[in-house]
Parts: sequence; structure tokens; C-alpha cells
Amino acid sequence: MRLVVALGGNALLERGEVPNAEIQEKHVVAAVESLVPLARDHDLVITHGNGPQVGLLAIESATDPALPHPYPFDVLGAQTQGMIGYFLLQAFENALPGQQVASLICQTLVAADDPAFKHPTKFVGPVYDENEARRLGRVRGWEVRRDGTAWRRVVASPEPQAVIEMPTIRTLLADGTVIVCAGGGGIPVCRTADGLLRGVEAVVDKDLTATLLATDLGADALLLLTDVSAVELGFGTAAAHPIHHTTPVALRAKTFSAGSMGPKVDAACRFVEATGKRAMIGRLDAAAALLEGTTGTIVDPELGQSSSDSLIRSTPVTQ
Amino acid sequence: MRLVVALGGNALLERGEVPNAEIQEKHVVAAVESLVPLARDHDLVITHGNGPQVGLLAIESATDPALPHPYPFDVLGAQTQGMIGYFLLQAFENALPGQQVASLICQTLVAADDPAFKHPTKFVGPVYDENEARRLGRVRGWEVRRDGTAWRRVVASPEPQAVIEMPTIRTLLADGTVIVCAGGGGIPVCRTADGLLRGVEAVVDKDLTATLLATDLGADALLLLTDVSAVELGFGTAAAHPIHHTTPVALRAKTFSAGSMGPKVDAACRFVEATGKRAMIGRLDAAAALLEGTTGTIVDPELGQSSSDSLIRSTPVTQ
Repeated sequence: MRLVVALGGNALLERGEVPNAEIQEKHVVAAVESLVPLARDHDLVITHGNGPQVGLLAIESATDPALPHPYPFDVLGAQTQGMIGYFLLQAFENALPGQQVASLICQTLVAADDPAFKHPTKFVGPVYDENEARRLGRVRGWEVRRDGTAWRRVVASPEPQAVIEMPTIRTLLADGTVIVCAGGGGIPVCRTADGLLRGVEAVVDKDLTATLLATDLGADALLLLTDVSAVELGFGTAAAHPIHHTTPVALRAKTFSAGSMGPKVDAACRFVEATGKRAMIGRLDAAAALLEGTTGTIVDPELGQSSSDSLIRSTPVTQ
Repeated sequence: MRLVVALGGNALLERGEVPNAEIQEKHVVAAVESLVPLARDHDLVITHGNGPQVGLLAIESATDPALPHPYPFDVLGAQTQGMIGYFLLQAFENALPGQQVASLICQTLVAADDPAFKHPTKFVGPVYDENEARRLGRVRGWEVRRDGTAWRRVVASPEPQAVIEMPTIRTLLADGTVIVCAGGGGIPVCRTADGLLRGVEAVVDKDLTATLLATDLGADALLLLTDVSAVELGFGTAAAHPIHHTTPVALRAKTFSAGSMGPKVDAACRFVEATGKRAMIGRLDAAAALLEGTTGTIVDPELGQSSSDSLIRSTPVTQ
């Protein structure tokens, strides 16, 4: 099978952890250990988040006295592709001696007129007081907004439309290479009026880019790996319970947190709707079981006869 | 022909320039313009320096209050591969629509017992006063040394032995892809006693890595591009004059600056000695003329009959 796997940025650096390189490398080694059985049996394309990592670099860049203009988000995203791509590359090479592995710098095309650019929603970089935030907004052309009691910059999260380096990914995939690509959702670029690629100040949702990769590559399954074991109904309430087997229709009828599970559910539904194949959401350390359908949330185009009594079963699909 | 081209880090950010992203991108676009004629007619593998870029990130990382342990040099090098690899990738894609281009994260193997680790020579990161430098040396395990009136950290510059991702480079080269790889000399890694790759705190000379790439890939020529138009004898003196056509034997008999031209001369000689092919050293904006032999310094295994009167001619090879 051909599999596309998305690793959450928080799976590489847990909330509250000191963002040292050693800690991130340790998490990457554990993540790769979980993916090795998949890489042995299947063609594997891996993409990854970069939230905590790009956040750190954004703050460093915005506060660097040597940089009158901090690096924009396309450049910061590229730096995190280098770093996390390196961690994953080395971990796969160590775990699978003799297996060809590649980490590709990748750009993701977004539309210059994507409505997200009119309504930026992603808080990024340092916190400021209101005066300083407004001053930086004027001086640097940033959009700034209140975030709780502080002020921060906001950037857009436009829809990924295409991964520019798709031909290279296909070439390497045909050659049996394990591919790490489009980290952080891909470096966001637009086309100018004369057709040239140009970086834009934005962040692209990595799960939506994973869906794009999986759809364009004709993947047999899309695995969205994170630090929670399944999509839950009533998340955070006493009645919370995991969804083990479901469909896009059933999921679309529910509401999930815009900040965490919502984008994953949307990404999984889009893949299943577009391809009729299966998507899974679950824990990074349970990747093989997730693929087998014995854990996590499985999204199928429709449920089989055995489950026709309910659109949402709470038992694993293989039982 | 198959060409390996090394771009100097200073060619991407000139001495004294503010290290904004826009300036670097402008230099990269100009560099790529110069390389486009070569890419049209030949197979092209490009590597690049990262001195100014890794210097900036090293200072940011060493002074980031969120990072008790600054990122080590393998990780910083990986970040610069992401950034500069992105600039080059986009510039080539814009200059050559329809041409497949790839930027690969690459590790360069060095020997754990390379003598360079006992005598580190590369000053890196911020300047400190002596007390602070010695304290950081103790706390962080850094080697520190006086650099003029200030103190700085020093890291080793070991010999590159192999580019780990060579099989991927070969696959893409066979497919006609323009390849950007092993930036900054490659991310320095050693093999542990149990054969695993592990990042090391070092910087690898990018011209020596270019030689390694060119030799291993069977390149027909190695171009070392920089901001000076040729290797000079008596550099910095009134008697300075450029060397247009020479041999490793002639060059090995002379002494060149260890900080700038020396490593390039050594890298060019090694390639010519190992392969019997030709290496060129010259200005980035004259890449095509350099390949034709009408400018810069051409290093041939031996000089032809027409120049048997002198080991070093001061006229271009094609005259």
C-alpha cells in the first residue's frame, strides 16, 4: 500500500517541554520506531507539523537586534523543514539501514486571493503590550490582535492548493524511497501575476497538506498521528467517548474544536470524500494498530452492513 | 556534461550586508540567473555555503532565553539547508519553468577520530568576555578561545568522508532533476560504535564537500563560485596577478590564505587529482564563461603543449 502519514508538531515537542534539540530528537526517534513497521511493508510519505519549532524561531527572529526585518514565515517554515526533516531523515536511516530515505524542502501553493488573507487567525511570535504591537504593526506591516491579555501578531492560514515539488516526490516514491516532505504544511507560496512563485507570510495547516499529498499521490490510506488516541464526541465533558469507526457524513454533522481536532477531522473527511479510501486519526505510538483498524478513529466512506445499525460505532472496526 | 557547482555563502550575503531574507533572496536570484545557461545544457548539482546564515542562527540560539541548551551545529546547519535550499529551489523553479528541481536535506559523514576534533579552528556564535566564555565552556562543554580582543566558541572542521544521501542524489540526477544538496558542507554526522548516525558539533568545508560530490558522482567539471574573479598569486600585494590556467602540481607549490582561497584551491586540486577532470574557480556571475574557460582560474590535470613553456599561464585556456 501507499501511505501518507502526518505527524503532529506537538508529538515532536510536547506542551510545556523545553524546546532543546535533544528532546525533539528523542521524540522523533520514538515516532520513527512506531513508523518502522509501516515503512517495512508499505510505501511511506511522511509530513509533519512545526508549530512549537516555528514559534521558537519566530520569536528569535523578531527579537534579533541584527535583523531589522525579521525573517518572514515562508523562510522560518523552511528553516523548520531543514531541522525536523534532518531529525526524521537520520532517525529513519538509523532504524532502517539500507533503506533510501529523503527529506525534501517543499513549497505549498496557496491562492493570493484566499479569503484567509483578509481574516488572519493564527497567532505567531512574541507577545507584546498593545502599544508595541500597534507600533510593530505599522513599522513591519504586521496584522496584530489581542490574544487574551496580551497582543500578538496574526498571520493567515490559507488553503493548500498544490505541493510544488510533487514530481520529485513521485520520482522518489517510484524508486522505493521513504519520503519526508512538506513539513509544517509546506512553505507557503503564491503565484505572482507573471506566474512566478513567491513566499507569503502565512502558515498552512499540515493536516490539509497531508490530505493534498495523499489525494494527489493516490494513497491507499491517510494517517493523521497526534497525541490523543481517538476523536472524541463530547470532548472534555463527563460524557466524552471515543469514535472508533465513522464516516465523513457522520463526522460532518458534529462540531469539533477549531484549535485541535477540527482540522484533523476535516482533513480526514476530505481525503475519504475525494478518494473513497480510508483515513485514520490516533496516537503516534500506535501507528501500526491504527492502520490495522484496532485502535484510534477510522474514517471510511461508508460503514459496512455489520454496522448499519449506527452511523458511529464505538467498537473497533476489526472486531 | 555533469557539473557540480559550489556557491560561496558570502555570495549569498555579502560582507557587511544586513542579513534580511529579502537581500539573500535577491542574491540567490542573481546567482541562479548566472547558472541557468548551465542548467539548460548540463546535469547540475548545486551545493552552497552557509557561513553568514549559520552565524546568525547560532547567535540567536545561544542568546535565546527559552533554550537552556542552544541548538548544536548539526541542527543549525540543517536549518540553514532549509532556508537557503528553499531560496535556491524557488529561484530555479522560477527561472526554468517545467524543469524538475529538488532541495535535499543532506548529512555529511565525518570520522569521530578526525584530528580536527582535537584542534577546533572555526570561530562560531557570539563574542564574549573571557570570564563569560570560560563559564559557558564549563557549563555547555564548549571549547572557547580568544579571537582578537574578544572570546568566542570554536568548533572543529573535520574532513568530509561521504554524503549519506548520495543514493537519492543519484536517483534524482538520473531523472534529469536540478539538485540542491549538502548545503553548508552538509550536516556533520559521525557513526557511533553501533553504526548509528549522530550529529556532531562541527562545520564542514563546503568546497571539500563539493569535491566529494563531484568525485563520487563522476562529474565532468567542478565549479567553485565565489566573489573574486580568479585565484591570485601575491594576493593583496602590488605584484598580485590572476592565475588563469594551472595544474594541481603548480598550485600545490604555492601558499594561499587558509581563511579564504586556500580551501578552494585545495578542493579544486583534489578533484583534478582524483579524477583527471577540470575544476574552475571564479566569480558567481561568470559561471558560463568560467565553464568555457574564458575567465577565472582553470585547474587542469596537466597543461597542453601550447603552454609547455610555463606551469602557470596568465592567459585564458581557450586563447
